This record gives sequence, C-alpha cells and structure tokens, in this order.
Amino acid sequence: MGRSLSLRELAAQLDAEVRGDALYTLSGVASLAHAGPTHLSFVLAPKYLSESLASRAGALVTDAALAERLAGRNCLVVARPHVQFAKAIDLFHPEPPTTPGVHPTAAVHPDAMLEADVAIGPQATVGAGARIGARSRIGPGSWIGEDVEMGEDCRLYGRVSLYPGCRLGHRVMLHAGCVIGADGFGLAWDGDHWRKVSQVGRVIVGDDVEIGANTTVDRGALDDTVIEEGVKLDNLIQVAHNVRIGAHTAIAGCVGIAGSTRIGSHCQIGGAAMIIGHLEIADRVVISAGTFVAKDIRDAGTYTSVQPLMPHAEWKRNAALLRHLDDMHGRLKTLERRVNDLDQQMD
Amino acid sequence: MGRSLSLRELAAQLDAEVRGDALYTLSGVASLAHAGPTHLSFVLAPKYLSESLASRAGALVTDAALAERLAGRNCLVVARPHVQFAKAIDLFHPEPPTTPGVHPTAAVHPDAMLEADVAIGPQATVGAGARIGARSRIGPGSWIGEDVEMGEDCRLYGRVSLYPGCRLGHRVMLHAGCVIGADGFGLAWDGDHWRKVSQVGRVIVGDDVEIGANTTVDRGALDDTVIEEGVKLDNLIQVAHNVRIGAHTAIAGCVGIAGSTRIGSHCQIGGAAMIIGHLEIADRVVISAGTFVAKDIRDAGTYTSVQPLMPHAEWKRNAALLRHLDDMHGRLKTLERRVNDLDQQMD
Amino acid sequence: MGRSLSLRELAAQLDAEVRGDALYTLSGVASLAHAGPTHLSFVLAPKYLSESLASRAGALVTDAALAERLAGRNCLVVARPHVQFAKAIDLFHPEPPTTPGVHPTAAVHPDAMLEADVAIGPQATVGAGARIGARSRIGPGSWIGEDVEMGEDCRLYGRVSLYPGCRLGHRVMLHAGCVIGADGFGLAWDGDHWRKVSQVGRVIVGDDVEIGANTTVDRGALDDTVIEEGVKLDNLIQVAHNVRIGAHTAIAGCVGIAGSTRIGSHCQIGGAAMIIGHLEIADRVVISAGTFVAKDIRDAGTYTSVQPLMPHAEWKRNAALLRHLDDMHGRLKTLERRVNDLDQQMD
Repeated sequence: MGRSLSLRELAAQLDAEVRGDALYTLSGVASLAHAGPTHLSFVLAPKYLSESLASRAGALVTDAALAERLAGRNCLVVARPHVQFAKAIDLFHPEPPTTPGVHPTAAVHPDAMLEADVAIGPQATVGAGARIGARSRIGPGSWIGEDVEMGEDCRLYGRVSLYPGCRLGHRVMLHAGCVIGADGFGLAWDGDHWRKVSQVGRVIVGDDVEIGANTTVDRGALDDTVIEEGVKLDNLIQVAHNVRIGAHTAIAGCVGIAGSTRIGSHCQIGGAAMIIGHLEIADRVVISAGTFVAKDIRDAGTYTSVQPLMPHAEWKRNAALLRHLDDMHGRLKTLERRVNDLDQQMD
Repeated sequence: MGRSLSLRELAAQLDAEVRGDALYTLSGVASLAHAGPTHLSFVLAPKYLSESLASRAGALVTDAALAERLAGRNCLVVARPHVQFAKAIDLFHPEPPTTPGVHPTAAVHPDAMLEADVAIGPQATVGAGARIGARSRIGPGSWIGEDVEMGEDCRLYGRVSLYPGCRLGHRVMLHAGCVIGADGFGLAWDGDHWRKVSQVGRVIVGDDVEIGANTTVDRGALDDTVIEEGVKLDNLIQVAHNVRIGAHTAIAGCVGIAGSTRIGSHCQIGGAAMIIGHLEIADRVVISAGTFVAKDIRDAGTYTSVQPLMPHAEWKRNAALLRHLDDMHGRLKTLERRVNDLDQQMD
Repeated sequence: MGRSLSLRELAAQLDAEVRGDALYTLSGVASLAHAGPTHLSFVLAPKYLSESLASRAGALVTDAALAERLAGRNCLVVARPHVQFAKAIDLFHPEPPTTPGVHPTAAVHPDAMLEADVAIGPQATVGAGARIGARSRIGPGSWIGEDVEMGEDCRLYGRVSLYPGCRLGHRVMLHAGCVIGADGFGLAWDGDHWRKVSQVGRVIVGDDVEIGANTTVDRGALDDTVIEEGVKLDNLIQVAHNVRIGAHTAIAGCVGIAGSTRIGSHCQIGGAAMIIGHLEIADRVVISAGTFVAKDIRDAGTYTSVQPLMPHAEWKRNAALLRHLDDMHGRLKTLERRVNDLDQQMD
C-alpha cells in the first residue's frame, strides 16, 4: 500500500516482458472484478479472457499465449503467471517489520533458548528447554511446550499449541489455533474400560511447511508423526499418530487422516476427504474432495468416491435402491438366464 | 434463577394470552421431561402432545391450536412459541452484568481505541490500531490483531482469534477458539515446490452474526471473504477464502465451504455438508446433512446426496455393486434388445 | 528415559511370565521396526509375527499363543499384551513431576477455590466460583469459566476452554484447544431473522473421560449435555447440545453428533462418521469410519454407509448411474414382466 511501481520496475522484479506502456505506474494488486486503473491483476486461463477484457485493471500478469489475445492491454508476460503474480502481491504488500524481543506479558522459562532477533508476543508461554531459531516469531497467546525445537524464520500466529518435544524445521508457518503434538488416540481395552496408551513419539515438521487454523497433528505413539518439507495443510485437518505425509503434498480443509497411514510426496488431497489408518498412498496421487479412502492406492492418478447431488425427492427414490442393488443384480442374472433359455427354445 | 413471575406477568412480556390460572407463579424454564410445577416449558408440534400431557411443568408456551388439545393445563398462547419461549428463557436467566474495564493482565496496545464501557478480559491481547465498539466484551485469552474494527455490543468468548484488519459489525458473537482471518489456502506451483500466495483480503462480518466454537473463516486472497448480516455458523465449520454467505443463512456444525463459493441468503445447510469451490448456491436452498455439493444450485429447494445406512454385511454386498453399475446398466440394455428381438420373433 | 529394568523386574510389574533370559536388561520401549537390543516391543496378532522375528527388539510383550511361535526370543507373556505394554511404556516414561502452585502470570479470581496441590500454568484464567480438585493441573493459556467444578487429578493441556458452569469428574484429560460448554446451535425463526435461543444447560463430563485437541462439546439448551464415565473422544469432534454419550464409548476424529442424540455405552464410532440429531443408538454399536447415520440403531452390531473408492474415470461412469437407479429398477421390472409373457407364450 502506498507504494508505486512502473511496469518496467515490476518487469525487472518479476522476470517479465512488458507489453504496452513500460512507464505506466501501478499502486496495488486486485482481482479482475475489483481492479481499477492503478491495479495490477492476473489472467491464468482462457476462460478468464472475457472477464479480463472487461476488467478496468491497469495491467495484467499473464503468459505469452494469453497476452496475444489481450492486445491493447498492458501486460507483464511471464512463464508462470500465478507464481509471478504472487511475487507482485508481496512487492505491494511487504510484510510489516516485527520488532524482536519478548513482550513483557510473555512467560519465557529461563531455561528456554532464544536465538537472535526472536519475537515473542503478548501472553505467549515458552517452556523449559525449548529452543527458538533466529528471527522466528511467536504470536500472542501461543504455548510452546518444554524441549520444543524450532528452526529459523518460523512464524506462529496467535494461540498456537506446540506440545513438549516437537520439532519444527525452518520457515514453518503455523496458523492460529493449530495444535501440534497432542496425544494420539491410543487405547487398550482392559476388560471393563479403556486404558490410555501413553504417546511417547513426537511430531517432526520439515522446512517450509504451512499448517492452517485449528488443524491438529498428533504426536506418535512410539515412533514419530512426520510432516515432510514443503507440505501445505489447510484448516481443520486431523492428522493422527504416526502418519507420514510426503514432501510437497498439499491437503485442503476438513481432511482426516487416521493413524499410521503414509501419504506419498506431491499428492493433492481435496477438502473433506477421509483416509483410514494403516494405508499406503503412492506419490502424485490426487484424491477428489469428499472422497473416502479405505484401501491402499499404489498408482499415481485421480481417485474419487462421492455421491452425486440430487433434488431430495429424486434422491429418495434412488437412494432407497442402494439397499437393493444386490437384489437387482440377482434379478438381472436370473433374467439373463431366462432369456438365454428362451433364445434356445426359439432356435 | 431465584426470579419469580406469574403467568400474567409473563403474558405481558411475551405478548401471550393466558389459559388457566393467571396468578400461577413460575421460577424457571425446563424441558418437558425435566420440568416441575414451578417451571415453564413449551410445546411446538402435535408430536409432543403426549409428552406435554405427561409433563409436570407448571405452564406451557404453545400456539392456539395446540392449546386446544392441552385443556386443563396452564398455557401461554402465542403466535410463535419457539421465539416467545426463547424470550422467556432470557427473563429467567438474565445475562449477568459485566463490569467494563481492562483486566490488569490484558495487553492492550496504546494505539488501540476502546469505546465506552468496553470490557477486556484476562490475558487478552488487542493490537495497535484496533477499534472496539461500545459495550463490546473480549473474553479471556482472545487475540485481536492490528487494525481490527469491531462494532458495538459484540461478545467474544475466551480464546478467539481475530487476524489483523478484519471487521465485525454490531452485536456479533464469536465463540471460543474460532479463528477469523487466517490466510486462505493460496498456493502456486513453482516447478518443484508450492509458493505461498499472500492473502491480502480481509474478513467482513455483518451485524448479528454468531460464529461457533473452533470455526475458521479465512481472509480473502485479494477481495474479501464476506459473512452477511444475521448469518449463524455452528462449530467446527471451515469457510475458505473469498466465500460469501448471504444474509440469515444458518449452517450447522462440521460443514466445509471451499474457496470463492457464493451461498445465497436464507439458506439452511445441514451438518457435515461439504461444498466445493467456485459455486453459486441460490437463495432459500436447503442442503441436507452430510451432502456433498459439487455443482451450482440455481433453484430454491432441498438437495441431498447421502448413502443409506446398512448393517455392515448387507452394505458389503451392495457397495461392491456400486463399482459395477455401469456393467449392470450395459447388461440391462442388452437384455432389452434381446427381449425386443424375441418379441418380434414371436409375432 | 535413562531407566533400566530387567525382564524379571518388568515381569513383576506387568504380571507377566518371562520366556528367555530373566536378567536381560532393557532401557526403553520402541516399535518393532525401530527397536534395538535395549528396547521392549510388543506383538498383538499373528500378522505381526514375521516383523517380530525380524525385529532387533531385546524383548517382546505378547500372549502365550504368540510366544510359542517366537521361540528363542525374550518374551514377557501376559493375558492382555496391549494393556500390559501400555503399563511398560509408563514404567520407562514416567510422567515428569509437576510443581503445584499458581504461575505468576495466571489470573485466578479470588473467589475461585483451589484444592490441595493444584497447578495453574502461565496465562491461565480461572473465574469466580470455580472449584479445582486436588492435584489437578491447568495448562498454559486455558480459560476456566465462572462456577466450573472440576474433580481431582484432572489434566488440562494448553489453551483449553471451559465455559461457565460446566462440571468435570475425576481424572478427566482435556487436550489443547478443546472447547467445553459453548452455546448449542439454538435458533428460532422470527419472521425475518433468526432469534438466538439462550442455552442454559451445562456440560457434565464423567470420571476418566479424555477429550482430544480442538474437539467441541456444546452446553445443553435446557437440560445438560452428558459425557459419561470412561468415554474417549479423539480430535476435532463436534458434540452438539443435549447429546448423551454412554460410558466407555470411544469416538475417533472428525466425527459430528447432532443435537439430542443419545449414544449407548461401549460403542465404537469410526473417524468422520456423522450422526444426525434426535436419534437413539443402542449399546455396543460399531459405526464404520465415514458412515452417515440418519436413523435409530436399535441393535448391537456393525453399521456402514460409505462409497467404495474408484479411479476417477470409472467413478464418473458409475456415479452418473446413481441418478438413474430408479429408472434402471423400473426397466428391470418391465423386463421381468415381458419375459414372463414370453415364457407363457412359449408354453
């Protein structure tokens, strides 16, 4: 905000080629619908062309093919428009500087170790033996348990919980309300009640992981729960004990992953998908939103298991028959046999 | 508690007509099952009549038609029994008064602006530039980020998170653990890793909105996420970036709404429904609990997509055939052709 | 850690019989895969035998039948291997002692009552009239509302919310971010807007209950929401107002239970199951993960309602037919009639 950049200046920063007026000056980013003449916007696909042509945006980040179809508009032509537009957002919205230091209301245990330029916010608690890497920032009301180890340049927003002994790599971002390292759901039936099985593993979070608001990642029972580098988890996701999520896998909101399941790298898991325990999911698997996964997936590809939406009355007629598929199948087989008999009689 | 009101006094407050003893005195509200002679209870529908007749309640709030069938019982006859009974609850359970002021353990930035009679609870944090409207109350351990604007008479329970720049209207109620304004799930694939797309929109919450415990509403990517006036959100709901929820829509627990979807006004969405991104849902749509919505809904009405429950063995037989519906359909078509042939041969 | 125990010493504590070298010394527990010669591990079922034989574990907790097939390995033979191994974990990982007392940053109201040896962590808030039983521990940033009653030896981790008036039994364990006693979703339609129905019931939690991270249990509308003794709730579960969960029922993550439903005792509910409101579920019912329950379950047994996973292209072909089951059923009936006619004509 308040910043002004010419297309030429932007092109230099974004590794872009200018089409149009290189001296044209912009002061912010906006969506196609809301952009005005001082805003930069972006076009990722042909389906947005008509909206782009109608947009009042001062300039558009796009690729070479789309730029051809945007003649007369100021464009910044790049190889990866989404990535380069993301960089443009950061140019116009630089992160406000944080003042390092410990807020007077924070409770940092004297045996915690804070490296250079750490910022600990109001009401945060840092336990004995915890180690906070350089330039990491702990938001208001967060709880960092005993012996947590955190790398450099981590960012914890308000009210994050990190149970004792967990480890974060560098540049990890944790959003408000997420809980890392609570006990896994370990129970042993003892004749007339459940006995708790203490959970003595940890959670290990790799570099450049982002974890969304109110997401929970349980500590391991004996071994560790592992979130590999570059994994991105959205909000309200449950990751049970001893799960392993492979590098650069992205998981949308409301997903549940039960205990000891291993998910490969570079997977994409749609919102509200549910994956039962003790499964193996291969690398580069795409699981559609709302899908229930109850068996191993050995091959890359897209997998789905959802019901189509229907008006309620139509659903009622059809869903009732789901209980009778087996019966329908039996009747179909009987008919096939009878028609075969009739055919033979006709011959 | 401790308050006593006669039926006549209650009738005056609830705009009701008394049937029975207007001087009969009550001291509280209770369910039909647990009410005693000093309790007021309520009857909303004929299916509760036998339970009502068996109830020991001293009096019943109900409508004229039901009152006819409750002869001999003290009744308060009203047009909208549920609404008037809700008022009666508040008469017997008046909100305990809150003392305005800032708790000594709270961390309120000197550049925050608190209007008249604001109450800031223990361990709460209010950031620079935040503005808290008159008589609003911030519960223990809540985090109000920089530049948040909040209207009058808002109520935040304990441990709410409000990220910087979000706006709340008047009389907004936020329950414990809810997170408003965390980053939307914005990622751009950069060849070998996901690049974060900074989320620079806000969350705008209208007047009289209530948001449940541990619900998350993400800030917009470029434009804002908008919750219009009178919307009611239950617990553990995920509202992704750039969603818009129309006025007076009510959404039950565990629902997920993916990015940029627009939900109309006066909708009712059942628990655990999941709605994918970039959809348009019309006004006055009812979505059944557990339903998965993957396409636009253009017309008011009720929509459903759930599987019926079965004993496991029965489910196993039927569900296996779901993989073979296409095959069954093909066999059905073949049979139809063969029976047509047989019919022709018979002629 | 750092502790050493011989098999003989372990056998005495675990009520086990030693097979092998009773003087063999162990210093920790580990999974079969990660155990070394100084670790105790465990074998619960024949399917783990080959992994057990390959494991480097110094000794194995198992039952008599499995021990027969582990000849040559040090074994601790017990009746219930999972329960006894859980005890072994606690022998090697004794809970670190907590120092009783109130952290100087905590805000404990002068009218709260703390029994002997209570520990109140940093930034915790305890409201007026609350009563904390002996030896209970309140974690950092937790909020204990007014008039909460908590039994002895409870354990609340960081950032738990307990709304006013709720009651916990003895030895209750609450994980970070869980919210007990927020308002149920009570709304009455008042012509042009929803009127809030104040929720004046409580949450009553029995002895030995464990509740997972970010799980929410709403207070009752008029009567109470009740979690009976020995119930175990995993993470991110929603329990709505006036639900009753019977003793020793275990519920996995991401489950939703709508209002006024009563779940029996000794049930097991799989992850992401969703149960609508006003239902009765009998004792000893098992509900499969991902199952949607929309009607009463009167008999013990296992119940399921999920779709099988398919590669997306296969799913597309099959799912489209779900909308046409009713049509397929009609065509099947027509064919049956026509084949009957043909049969008669042939006679």
